[in-house]
Amino acid sequence: MKHEIRVIFGDTDQMGVVYYANYLRFFESSRAAYWRALGKSYRDLEQAQIALPVIEAHCTYKKPALYEDLLEVDVEVGELRAASLRFVYTIRRGLDVIAEGYTRHAVIGPTGRPRALPDEFRDLLSR
Amino acid sequence: MKHEIRVIFGDTDQMGVVYYANYLRFFESSRAAYWRALGKSYRDLEQAQIALPVIEAHCTYKKPALYEDLLEVDVEVGELRAASLRFVYTIRRGLDVIAEGYTRHAVIGPTGRPRALPDEFRDLLSR
Amino acid sequence: MKHEIRVIFGDTDQMGVVYYANYLRFFESSRAAYWRALGKSYRDLEQAQIALPVIEAHCTYKKPALYEDLLEVDVEVGELRAASLRFVYTIRRGLDVIAEGYTRHAVIGPTGRPRALPDEFRDLLSR
Amino acid sequence: MKHEIRVIFGDTDQMGVVYYANYLRFFESSRAAYWRALGKSYRDLEQAQIALPVIEAHCTYKKPALYEDLLEVDVEVGELRAASLRFVYTIRRGLDVIAEGYTRHAVIGPTGRPRALPDEFRDLLSR
Repeated sequence: MKHEIRVIFGDTDQMGVVYYANYLRFFESSRAAYWRALGKSYRDLEQAQIALPVIEAHCTYKKPALYEDLLEVDVEVGELRAASLRFVYTIRRGLDVIAEGYTRHAVIGPTGRPRALPDEFRDLLSR
Repeated sequence: MKHEIRVIFGDTDQMGVVYYANYLRFFESSRAAYWRALGKSYRDLEQAQIALPVIEAHCTYKKPALYEDLLEVDVEVGELRAASLRFVYTIRRGLDVIAEGYTRHAVIGPTGRPRALPDEFRDLLSR
Repeated sequence: MKHEIRVIFGDTDQMGVVYYANYLRFFESSRAAYWRALGKSYRDLEQAQIALPVIEAHCTYKKPALYEDLLEVDVEVGELRAASLRFVYTIRRGLDVIAEGYTRHAVIGPTGRPRALPDEFRDLLSR
Repeated sequence: MKHEIRVIFGDTDQMGVVYYANYLRFFESSRAAYWRALGKSYRDLEQAQIALPVIEAHCTYKKPALYEDLLEVDVEVGELRAASLRFVYTIRRGLDVIAEGYTRHAVIGPTGRPRALPDEFRDLLSR
């Protein structure tokens, strides 16, 4: 799935490029778009009494992203385990790869205990 | 001009609503969209050796904006003076007004001195 | 009450100065320090079943704040009404005034209805 | 070196915990404190015509950090190569480890080309 992001001043820092922490915002924004594209949202996860907290995040910065850039984030499910999953991201500006990264998420229930991802979501994600 | 913004987790705080400072990000994002709709960008301002630093910002919060809300920002030029201008914003979710605000900007040249907004930009903004 | 803030890269934008929305973060950080100085925290407010959502925010930007600046925020209660209050802020770097602003807060109870600020808090704030 | 951070509302998200991207802000804040503890700042790097852009960032999230937590970040130089270096971070609340991570930085000169870290900085960092 592809998701577009327009860089604003508030995303940049005084180096004139997107501040490194903001790529994790871009990842999150793309993740939500991914769920919406599947007809789901985090609200559906909440109703199914699931949360998917980030337990690990990684990003490699290849080329700087600049003010007003229209970035395209390619997001995919990279790994689907019993009680965790991984999203993988590539951020591009045209043909240039700007950054690559992933986030790993635990699947937990209402009490914070690990649980299995319900089939409904598992099936959607494994298509 | 109208500009859409999708609320992400990173925009919210633990009150479960959009954190108050982030409305100023939404204003900025809309301002940039406004320039683009006129066929211009801040880069054109830079080339004309103009900067428009914010000298005042104001926001009133009417109703909370929530995660995944699709907000519509209505942005207009509210005042066009010799060496300053004002943008006025209304943020809505459907028919509900979520927030209203404005930003006032000085018009300055490369040395930081106040200067008049060039006719090219003045004409565009006063349409 | 005075509260110190050190500017980081993440606070700046590509203009080389602190991004305008981040002053509202500085305000909030000072507000929390103010409560702590009174021996209270927002957690005490929560226990008293009160919330103080921001209903208005205003900032005037006098001089740019820069990376690594050690800013001093002077925060005071500017107005204490039946069901609202105002905090007033001055941000300085040495003798220079960088920004001035205020936030206005409603006093609401657990159902979101306006209520009076309990005497315990009123007394503390009016000293 | 140890650096303290107080969590504000603006750092949290609607899950009631610190938003995952903000740990990278905490890392940066600690990195700057590290340089200051050595009697240096990024401004000294600039004067030496060096920049240390982040080329990789990683964080594992162990326990949630909460509003008003006073976090302690332990920051060290983990690796010092010809034209890159690594900072390693552990964020604790009391004895609890909240998060661990690292950032990798290229050493580049004014034209963006890789260069060696000057001895002055290398000596400081390798103590």
